[in-house]
Amino acid sequence: MTEKIIMGVDPGTNLMGYGLLRVAGNKAALIAMGVIKLHQYESHYLRLGKIYERITSLIDSYHPDEMAIEAPFYGKNVQSMLKLGRAQGVAITAAIMRDIPITEYEPKKIKIASTGTGSASKEQVAGMLQRILRIPKEEMDVQLDATDALAAAYCHFIQMSRPTVEHKFTSWKDYAIKKGVLPKKDKK
Amino acid sequence: MTEKIIMGVDPGTNLMGYGLLRVAGNKAALIAMGVIKLHQYESHYLRLGKIYERITSLIDSYHPDEMAIEAPFYGKNVQSMLKLGRAQGVAITAAIMRDIPITEYEPKKIKIASTGTGSASKEQVAGMLQRILRIPKEEMDVQLDATDALAAAYCHFIQMSRPTVEHKFTSWKDYAIKKGVLPKKDKK
Repeated sequence: MTEKIIMGVDPGTNLMGYGLLRVAGNKAALIAMGVIKLHQYESHYLRLGKIYERITSLIDSYHPDEMAIEAPFYGKNVQSMLKLGRAQGVAITAAIMRDIPITEYEPKKIKIASTGTGSASKEQVAGMLQRILRIPKEEMDVQLDATDALAAAYCHFIQMSRPTVEHKFTSWKDYAIKKGVLPKKDKK
Repeated sequence: MTEKIIMGVDPGTNLMGYGLLRVAGNKAALIAMGVIKLHQYESHYLRLGKIYERITSLIDSYHPDEMAIEAPFYGKNVQSMLKLGRAQGVAITAAIMRDIPITEYEPKKIKIASTGTGSASKEQVAGMLQRILRIPKEEMDVQLDATDALAAAYCHFIQMSRPTVEHKFTSWKDYAIKKGVLPKKDKK
């Protein structure tokens, strides 16, 4: 049975969560999780550089085979989406530069994968992951951005186990159509 | 008189324009300009990787001292801003990883710097830059994304020549406040 490592990332410009899962068949186990703290860097630009450096360094340490990103597609306002897009773009590029395939998941889908409900709280997601992955209590002493990232990795594991993976996009347009933002056109 | 090289970038996920200016005192001259064509790559993720590679390669070829980015702060919708943010984030990170300081300018400000009016067309911006920088006609045979990027570099040159640079930001919050999106709070 092929073993794979999935890296989950929850991008943000204040805290960036990450979580690594080792999966084989229908089994998944925690490797590591944590947060990259970006508060300490005053410059928004420097924060983006740090995201790139740290994600690259995590990839080089754990050699993930796939990356799953928590990516909200709808946001409150254009400014917050611009800011979030920058953080996401940097995390994605770090993976691409190491030839790691990326899959994006909406927060709701990630919550459903671990708890069965799209309205679960971050605490409920963390609690459920702890039980499913049998994580020792002392290892759960992390910020919720870390468990959120781990939940993205877990969601990807669940998706991979299914016969069809829904969220494969060939282009931004394809992405927008599949997300229901652009109308689907009939193929001629 | 210290000579500096300014690299202007107009980020996008279909075409990314770039323009390089050599400046000294109140003189500026074109070094190179062009566009990075991203149409050919179907995957949105691959496009982000290509932006990173090409910007890094341009930096390594021309060794710019500063980077100026055309960055609209207001957009039509959250999806387009998310997409634009990703492209911007990658271009910014390529500069940060090479320790190049970044300054962002809104499209209107860039237009004003070269034409005197914020409502100038892309063609008017290109025509004005051709005259100001005395660019031979044959070198103007480029897409307007290239001249837009050159206009960003020119705008930065004009700003640098002034006693105070308005667009220095210490954080995202500071950025939002100075752009008038967040209310300015009194310091206690």
